[in-house]
Amino acid sequence: MTRDYIIIVAGGKGLRMESDIPKQFLPIMGTPVLMRTMKRFHDYSNKLQIILVLPESQQEYWTGLCKSHSFDIPYTLATGGPTRFHSVKNGLDMIPADAEGTVGVHDGVRPFPDIEVIRRCYDAARTTGAAIPVTPVVETLRHITSGTADRSAYRLVQTPQVFTVDVLRKAYMQEYTETFTDDASVVEHAGHRVTMIDGNRENIKITTPFDIAVAEAIIKKASSTH
Amino acid sequence: MTRDYIIIVAGGKGLRMESDIPKQFLPIMGTPVLMRTMKRFHDYSNKLQIILVLPESQQEYWTGLCKSHSFDIPYTLATGGPTRFHSVKNGLDMIPADAEGTVGVHDGVRPFPDIEVIRRCYDAARTTGAAIPVTPVVETLRHITSGTADRSAYRLVQTPQVFTVDVLRKAYMQEYTETFTDDASVVEHAGHRVTMIDGNRENIKITTPFDIAVAEAIIKKASSTH
Repeated sequence: MTRDYIIIVAGGKGLRMESDIPKQFLPIMGTPVLMRTMKRFHDYSNKLQIILVLPESQQEYWTGLCKSHSFDIPYTLATGGPTRFHSVKNGLDMIPADAEGTVGVHDGVRPFPDIEVIRRCYDAARTTGAAIPVTPVVETLRHITSGTADRSAYRLVQTPQVFTVDVLRKAYMQEYTETFTDDASVVEHAGHRVTMIDGNRENIKITTPFDIAVAEAIIKKASSTH
Repeated sequence: MTRDYIIIVAGGKGLRMESDIPKQFLPIMGTPVLMRTMKRFHDYSNKLQIILVLPESQQEYWTGLCKSHSFDIPYTLATGGPTRFHSVKNGLDMIPADAEGTVGVHDGVRPFPDIEVIRRCYDAARTTGAAIPVTPVVETLRHITSGTADRSAYRLVQTPQVFTVDVLRKAYMQEYTETFTDDASVVEHAGHRVTMIDGNRENIKITTPFDIAVAEAIIKKASSTH
């Protein structure tokens, strides 16, 4: 069956008493980051199957949050593992064995991938097997020991990283190693080439209070231009 | 005479009819970017000698802007050259031949260097000759041909880049080459080592409308926490 999937990985620390609320649950102008992220993919296509991977310790909190926000976008829940690699693997296990089509992997704390960027990644993955959004390095780049690097030869990598189900499944059959920093590195390690797609700069990862302020600016700007 | 200088370089395209206003003149919450930048250094130390380098075609516009904003921070004006290298050189020429002390070089479109970061750069430059602020690479970094790079081995370089007057003068006696992307690269090419200082993430370069929105968020956040 040909279907398209997105695995949204929301790791972060578990919810313990007195600990901070994980960033994916923080509200940006009233709506938690993770709901904004899921809605963005739902807006891209309401046929896209959303698989949300959350640490077990956060699932009850999340379910409560969904109720209080009347969040009604359908998704399948998977349980996070000790590393991002294991979390993605658990998400992949939710996809039926006979599934064809494509599967993206996306950071739960990135609520602003451009819908056109999402589309281009899925389209490119269908023809090449693997596509990731990248942006240029706008600052001077420096190697800590060898000095100034040629920034034009580098890109910053975002998500969603999209693959055919087949390519991603085979890649995730490999043993975990610490050099697996993102899905592209897992897929490349399995011998598959990755296509780079122009991403959008607003597609930031929300990890600090500064990012929350930036996120609010992005939303205000978007609502003033639409 | 021991004095400390900052050369603020505001290049960008010249002001022609129907062209966009260069980013350094755009207002952020009422105050032009460049005035915010200059005020930040004045706040660090009102003894710091500010040298502003502006393209000749923008100087009349700038003078008018200063009048309409009653901008009264003292500075020396120098004229921009065809490249950043030449602009900095023109700024350096404004420093008296017998001057000792330190000189920083800063992008006019970076209004948010933390005052403590500025201080640490000047302090480190006094003892090591050359100090620059850097931040970690927070996204996955990828080389366009060889794939995932180890981002922990790289830093993003900001300004102010601070040097002893002597070190920067000697470095700028070199012939210009295209590999001179910032002052650290000029100084290193002259054989001097550069010390890296932890920068602050808010110290962004304002080059797109997105950055203006982020800048507004930074100012609002700062005023809500002070």
